[in-house]
Amino acid sequence: MDVDAAVFDVFGTLTDWRSGVAGALADIGGRAGLEADWPAVADTWRRRYRPALERVLGGELPWRPLDALHRLTLDEALAGHGLDALDGAERDALVRAWHRLRPWPDAAPGLELLHTTRVLTATLSNGGVGPLARLTKQAGLRFDCVLSAELARSYKPDPRVYLMAAELLEVEPRRLLMVACHPDDLEAAAAAGLRTAYIPRPLEWGPDAARVAPPAGVDLVADDVPGLARALGATG
Amino acid sequence: MDVDAAVFDVFGTLTDWRSGVAGALADIGGRAGLEADWPAVADTWRRRYRPALERVLGGELPWRPLDALHRLTLDEALAGHGLDALDGAERDALVRAWHRLRPWPDAAPGLELLHTTRVLTATLSNGGVGPLARLTKQAGLRFDCVLSAELARSYKPDPRVYLMAAELLEVEPRRLLMVACHPDDLEAAAAAGLRTAYIPRPLEWGPDAARVAPPAGVDLVADDVPGLARALGATG
Repeated sequence: MDVDAAVFDVFGTLTDWRSGVAGALADIGGRAGLEADWPAVADTWRRRYRPALERVLGGELPWRPLDALHRLTLDEALAGHGLDALDGAERDALVRAWHRLRPWPDAAPGLELLHTTRVLTATLSNGGVGPLARLTKQAGLRFDCVLSAELARSYKPDPRVYLMAAELLEVEPRRLLMVACHPDDLEAAAAAGLRTAYIPRPLEWGPDAARVAPPAGVDLVADDVPGLARALGATG
Repeated sequence: MDVDAAVFDVFGTLTDWRSGVAGALADIGGRAGLEADWPAVADTWRRRYRPALERVLGGELPWRPLDALHRLTLDEALAGHGLDALDGAERDALVRAWHRLRPWPDAAPGLELLHTTRVLTATLSNGGVGPLARLTKQAGLRFDCVLSAELARSYKPDPRVYLMAAELLEVEPRRLLMVACHPDDLEAAAAAGLRTAYIPRPLEWGPDAARVAPPAGVDLVADDVPGLARALGATG
């Protein structure tokens, strides 16, 4: 596939948010003397993300950085699990757990391999620029550029986010590849004129989650990031 | 020095614009059958940059990406040296010479060393995001983030550019270090509340340029980028 740049979703596609967030909940909740099914709380928190994001894109709520949106949905998730005892500082610490997630094992070597090609790489996430820079540094994920929906003061799947990436990287949308494990992200990128690559992450929602088929209509399906790098011309 | 992030000027501080631009002029001008003192043409081009930038910051010209500003000042420089014969495609190719400059020899190892510390690193240049991502990738300059004055639709030394960097990286201005070889860049950063580090680049204007003393009032003077990295806590 002949593209000039590839932009990557981060939460789910490159990093394991579920174990990182469940671990932070268990740690902070446990120290507060609380007990819960922490992975289930993490799932609830994540499931409240898309509806909250749609309230912003629909104009019901003003745009805010992802951390502030995460705080809103955390409050909802904790209330739903009877965990109201956590205080503001503990909740802020939980929001920051999203800044230090572990990468999937193939992500860092795959990005290093992609770095050997002429394809420019960037994040394209709803996370903020600063949190993404910290996360990718700490996780050892090498990118040529950090791009965030924050720069368009919006969120994916707003088409303006994908087109902003093409504009800032100075590539035509059809020569820009969106890489994600989420079909809705790829569908929105394709609708904005980008090319799309799907990487399955069957463990995103834990080992017991139902398997899903690769989405139809993507330009490329790769097993992992090194496979994607090879499809984009890397040798190794 | 205790800072959370360091942002770097690129043209001059990390890369040798003069030899790169003079080389491109000699190459493209030579192929067009022209003769000139190419380093002197490069110097003229660069000298026209600051006045053009001030016309934009003063409101006389609308903001435009650095490439477009470089095209304007190239036209002026070529006219001044009797080189009007170069056509539009040749001029555009010359503008792109700024995207593939060579780094100073200490820059890449110094940034690798800085990468081992907890200090977040980013560019902070008047160059565009895409050109900066290409330049840093090609020159092997590792950054955690690419920041450009383009994101504020302005240019350094506008204080909004420095404050935008602090805001996007989510650090307090006083915990953000501006690194440059240009005293005016550092003075403007300091006025915006940032900390400042000066790295001398005595060869920026060629081997015959007059030596200048380090500016007064900066927080740190380092011999080179590895020296800066060690001053920020790197061991090596």
